[in-house]
Amino acid sequence: MSSLPSIGVLVSGSGSNLQAIIDAVEAGCIPCKIGVVISNKADAYGLVRARSHGIPTEFVDHRSFDSREAFDAHLVKILRSYDIRLVCLAGFMRLLTPTFLGAFPMRVLNIHPALLPSFPGTHGPRDALNYGVRFSGCTVHFIDEGIDTGPIVAQAVVPVYEDDTEESLAARILKEEHRVYPMAIRLFLEEKLTISEKKVFTGNAGRISGFSCRNPDT
Amino acid sequence: MSSLPSIGVLVSGSGSNLQAIIDAVEAGCIPCKIGVVISNKADAYGLVRARSHGIPTEFVDHRSFDSREAFDAHLVKILRSYDIRLVCLAGFMRLLTPTFLGAFPMRVLNIHPALLPSFPGTHGPRDALNYGVRFSGCTVHFIDEGIDTGPIVAQAVVPVYEDDTEESLAARILKEEHRVYPMAIRLFLEEKLTISEKKVFTGNAGRISGFSCRNPDT
Repeated sequence: MSSLPSIGVLVSGSGSNLQAIIDAVEAGCIPCKIGVVISNKADAYGLVRARSHGIPTEFVDHRSFDSREAFDAHLVKILRSYDIRLVCLAGFMRLLTPTFLGAFPMRVLNIHPALLPSFPGTHGPRDALNYGVRFSGCTVHFIDEGIDTGPIVAQAVVPVYEDDTEESLAARILKEEHRVYPMAIRLFLEEKLTISEKKVFTGNAGRISGFSCRNPDT
Repeated sequence: MSSLPSIGVLVSGSGSNLQAIIDAVEAGCIPCKIGVVISNKADAYGLVRARSHGIPTEFVDHRSFDSREAFDAHLVKILRSYDIRLVCLAGFMRLLTPTFLGAFPMRVLNIHPALLPSFPGTHGPRDALNYGVRFSGCTVHFIDEGIDTGPIVAQAVVPVYEDDTEESLAARILKEEHRVYPMAIRLFLEEKLTISEKKVFTGNAGRISGFSCRNPDT
């Protein structure tokens, strides 16, 4: 009889952020269990990661639904059956509709590989590189009905080098994603986050520190 | 008979970035002399700063010209009379027209109090605070015909705290402005900067470091 809350993780691919979350949970750094991992791709490696850690998985093919809303309603049904308190997107490549967001208001987190509001969309590292910025990073944010416009929970910064490729920059950013996403999930589950006028407050003046749950191998 | 190139600085107000440039030049950290400081406001404190360091000043009232182009043409005439190689905007509150930019192509620098392309316009710190980002900063960029869209030379990052006011955040950013603007000017004058497809390359893979010309009092 665990009293820990459950989170659900949605993936479409490799799920390296899922792995960072699994590692943080197993290390005792996030007070939760991962109730279910759902993928819209049958061959997503994220499903393999989950199974190898004994986490229930579900494959839901979005192509078998007549509408985005019907797909989303089915996801909600599954998540509710696992009593999910927080939904974490980890490389989930489908836009969520109000059907989903209304079921989990301000309870869906995403991580984006750029310092939002710069470089929203699907090519954060490439867009940053092409623009010529000297710093980029990643952003954990609540999902709202815009594209990468929701309230920001946490960010991390990395330098951009002139000899970076899209791959080298993305890898540098990903390392920070694996650090801040578990931290943001913990803040949510510890009920530290409040939202006012689209801004997220942590009760710590934003001076988040001391989260040392990083797995040096990830 | 000095062979040092001359730069011109355009101000409209306090000119704290002008002071940082003066300090860096006087400390021998930027290989140039400041040929002239021009203000479109008669009472700009930047003019006082310049005079107290023996730098020639000019006041040009934009209201006394029939058009932006006429005003800009007059500025160009003055700058050419001082044989100015690089123009640095330091809180200059007038938009420059192609008349000006054509006379100094990719030879006009500006500093903006945000991590562009986030938060362009006249309220960088306020906009960052209202958005709820965790990091902001400043950007030195060449002026092009857009608003804060020109090629980026240098950036610096500062944290944004939840208890920040617009003033406290602006002050934290300003400190970094005073550090990176002189550094960017030096890179330009040392002919380290090349521009390709809107991106600025420094020949150092962007790993700019070792510029320790900061005046601890500024």
